[in-house]
Amino acid sequence: MQKLVKDIKTAIEKCGLQDGMCIGFHHHLRGGDYVLNMVMEQIAELGIKDLTINASSIHESHTPLIEHMKNGTVTGLVTAYIGPTVGKAVSQGVLKNPVVFQTHGYRPAGMAKGEYRPDISFIAAPSSDPMGNCTGKIGKSACGSLGYAFSDAEYAGKVVVITDNLVDYPLTQYSISETSVDYVVKVDEIGDPKGIVSGTTRMPRNPVSLKIAQQAAKAIDASGLLKDGFSFQTGAGGASLATAAYLKDIMLEKEIKGSYALGGITGYLVEMLEAGCFQAIQDVQCFDLKAVQSIRDNPCHAEISAAHYASPDAKSSAASSLDVVVLGATEIDVDFNVNVHTDSNGYIMGGSGGHSDVAQEAKMTIIVAPLLRTRYAVVKKHVKCISTPGDSVDILVTEYGICVNPKREDLKQRLTEAGLLVVDIHDLQKKAEKITGIPEEPEEKESRVVAEVMYRDGSIIDRIYQV
Amino acid sequence: MQKLVKDIKTAIEKCGLQDGMCIGFHHHLRGGDYVLNMVMEQIAELGIKDLTINASSIHESHTPLIEHMKNGTVTGLVTAYIGPTVGKAVSQGVLKNPVVFQTHGYRPAGMAKGEYRPDISFIAAPSSDPMGNCTGKIGKSACGSLGYAFSDAEYAGKVVVITDNLVDYPLTQYSISETSVDYVVKVDEIGDPKGIVSGTTRMPRNPVSLKIAQQAAKAIDASGLLKDGFSFQTGAGGASLATAAYLKDIMLEKEIKGSYALGGITGYLVEMLEAGCFQAIQDVQCFDLKAVQSIRDNPCHAEISAAHYASPDAKSSAASSLDVVVLGATEIDVDFNVNVHTDSNGYIMGGSGGHSDVAQEAKMTIIVAPLLRTRYAVVKKHVKCISTPGDSVDILVTEYGICVNPKREDLKQRLTEAGLLVVDIHDLQKKAEKITGIPEEPEEKESRVVAEVMYRDGSIIDRIYQV
Repeated sequence: MQKLVKDIKTAIEKCGLQDGMCIGFHHHLRGGDYVLNMVMEQIAELGIKDLTINASSIHESHTPLIEHMKNGTVTGLVTAYIGPTVGKAVSQGVLKNPVVFQTHGYRPAGMAKGEYRPDISFIAAPSSDPMGNCTGKIGKSACGSLGYAFSDAEYAGKVVVITDNLVDYPLTQYSISETSVDYVVKVDEIGDPKGIVSGTTRMPRNPVSLKIAQQAAKAIDASGLLKDGFSFQTGAGGASLATAAYLKDIMLEKEIKGSYALGGITGYLVEMLEAGCFQAIQDVQCFDLKAVQSIRDNPCHAEISAAHYASPDAKSSAASSLDVVVLGATEIDVDFNVNVHTDSNGYIMGGSGGHSDVAQEAKMTIIVAPLLRTRYAVVKKHVKCISTPGDSVDILVTEYGICVNPKREDLKQRLTEAGLLVVDIHDLQKKAEKITGIPEEPEEKESRVVAEVMYRDGSIIDRIYQV
Repeated sequence: MQKLVKDIKTAIEKCGLQDGMCIGFHHHLRGGDYVLNMVMEQIAELGIKDLTINASSIHESHTPLIEHMKNGTVTGLVTAYIGPTVGKAVSQGVLKNPVVFQTHGYRPAGMAKGEYRPDISFIAAPSSDPMGNCTGKIGKSACGSLGYAFSDAEYAGKVVVITDNLVDYPLTQYSISETSVDYVVKVDEIGDPKGIVSGTTRMPRNPVSLKIAQQAAKAIDASGLLKDGFSFQTGAGGASLATAAYLKDIMLEKEIKGSYALGGITGYLVEMLEAGCFQAIQDVQCFDLKAVQSIRDNPCHAEISAAHYASPDAKSSAASSLDVVVLGATEIDVDFNVNVHTDSNGYIMGGSGGHSDVAQEAKMTIIVAPLLRTRYAVVKKHVKCISTPGDSVDILVTEYGICVNPKREDLKQRLTEAGLLVVDIHDLQKKAEKITGIPEEPEEKESRVVAEVMYRDGSIIDRIYQV
């Protein structure tokens, strides 16, 4: 049996790609990914049209996709996140069909049910053997976890592994097994290491972020959840990351032995593992070199699939056991609904990723955000787009105080007793409005839907319109 | 979410077991397994009837099953192997429906297609966390690989993990993920360590076995396959194991760097890995303590699922790349058909396991067997039961010489040129007949079918009749 073929074009032809099919990609190579672009270039040359891409995320490295959308090679996109450049083009109407925004947790659940199941998935693998046993943990383009690619391997009709580090059969420390793989292609480079992972995780120095982070850490301490067995997720954004830093100090001081850190993993969470704040890390995606080293070398640092991370259809996921998650927001409204999809002008510049997945699952969901960003209010009467319903959000931490969701009177009491400044979200919204002025009401003109926001139960909870 | 329930009975009730359902078990605890018996005892007490058991193998530890067959609790059995005690009872007609003998490779393929998919599978796990992330590598009942249980986790409607070593969440070095597990039960002991794995692997001292083994090793050397990149499987039976010993000497002397050893793994194959004969082991089942230690500690020793081992429906399996396999036989006939299901009296005392899977996949399949066992001929005109079709067998090695399948003229020439004694299988058959006398023709009476032998393509290739 020979799976190794000479180039990407051959693999595409052998898989029988045809007009109208769905193709899958994962985003562990993030801003450094070459694979999506290389594959799309070959597909465009073959003259195949009307494809739907099901990609776990679209990053700034994927701007060539705009051309493929313009010329009809790609007419559909299913994803959990779109970076600002492709996002703006989509908001301007470049794509024929509305984007379907899923969550990271729903993607494997949807595929299992046959929704947007890729006819062919392309797996960018930092190391593979010739039969397709592959891993992200080793190789010059190492990215650590391949968590989002597991569902591609499991559900796609055909699976093509693309690697720049072909190793002898068998690769024993495989993440994805040869049982799922049809073809293997060796290329010179699958990505730019500088874009795949950051060299180091940098703490923010912005005093507003630091203040918010400190308050968030104190809120966690006051919540009653910070005790032995504590589990925690935070993102790589400034205030989220800084929250981990303050939390680490509290945990070390109080000698709290946490259970696990979850999510996209930064070196900062690895340091907390190594310092004994946690006994384990569950990792669906690595953000920096330290996380990649740790997932390779530390047996307490586990690679998990997207389903294991947060699938709503899993019998349980790592998110099911999560105590606290700290998340960001582009906008949040007085009902605690959060927007992470569009910017202040209504352009797509993000997406849920796993935001609404873990927000729903965690015992306490904290949004950290400043009251204003440049001249725009973050706290508003209504968000432009609901990414995560307010029902999933417990508190908002700003530099002007902490707002508690009315459904969490218990938490409000705890925070107040701890001496934290609890404020009404309506007051914050008015304060922001006073500074920015009353924003122009969006024109109610008939505008085309450019994206639908699918919640983790498969329902459409919002629509994004052409700008 | 609470998956931990107080006992097996509660788990069975919560899973909604009903008359007529199919339940799954795996056999990594082998002769020491308590789990199948504990579960069946509870089911019998609950008065549930007419169940079909889909178990990867049935061992001597499972003799209480005979009672459950007698009283109608169990009326169907799907498996790849039945030890002699239960086998004899089945041959005498204790089970209502004919046993369906599958192969280890077909079991996951069949389940994927919905054939004998368990409504509930019970996974005997030497360590598990309370959400069902589990492994066989650690714990007082450590058995190493859980390879056969992967398909139970993937395809069974409900999955119950039964463990005697409950560890803190999350178990990071999990083999089976919480995403598939419904309930977890902690019991005192899942098995008897002495029966789970042998303490050490013992080489045979029987001169006939040693002679056969030496000839088999020489045949491998002469085949042209023994070179860098060589891959190999052998069983734990006397002559098979001794073949590995002779092969090791040849490989070390010729400085051959093999690729991998496959299969149920013994300490002897581990020693070959450690000596540099192989760069990897692919392990679906551990036979002894040394194998268990190695799969836990050596990153070159990989756990693989049954599908990864030998599924005919996998896009490739470890068996797909296999050069040479050495297998045993109860009987072999002049067309090279092999029986490993029944003894000389026609009683069931075994089964294919992965015999016909790897025999079909390997580039060279060697059967090692003596001409006679006590007063019975092993080489016969016709085998009582076809387990592995002669088409998959390349050579038979006996103490009286080597028989080569006529389809392998090339191999016959190589062996002859190497000075090995190549004999005609018909001559061997006649020699055996001369010693034992012409065996009584089996009575052609109308007898009930007690088992059907399913080949790895899903077709029924033979039937076993009541004795």
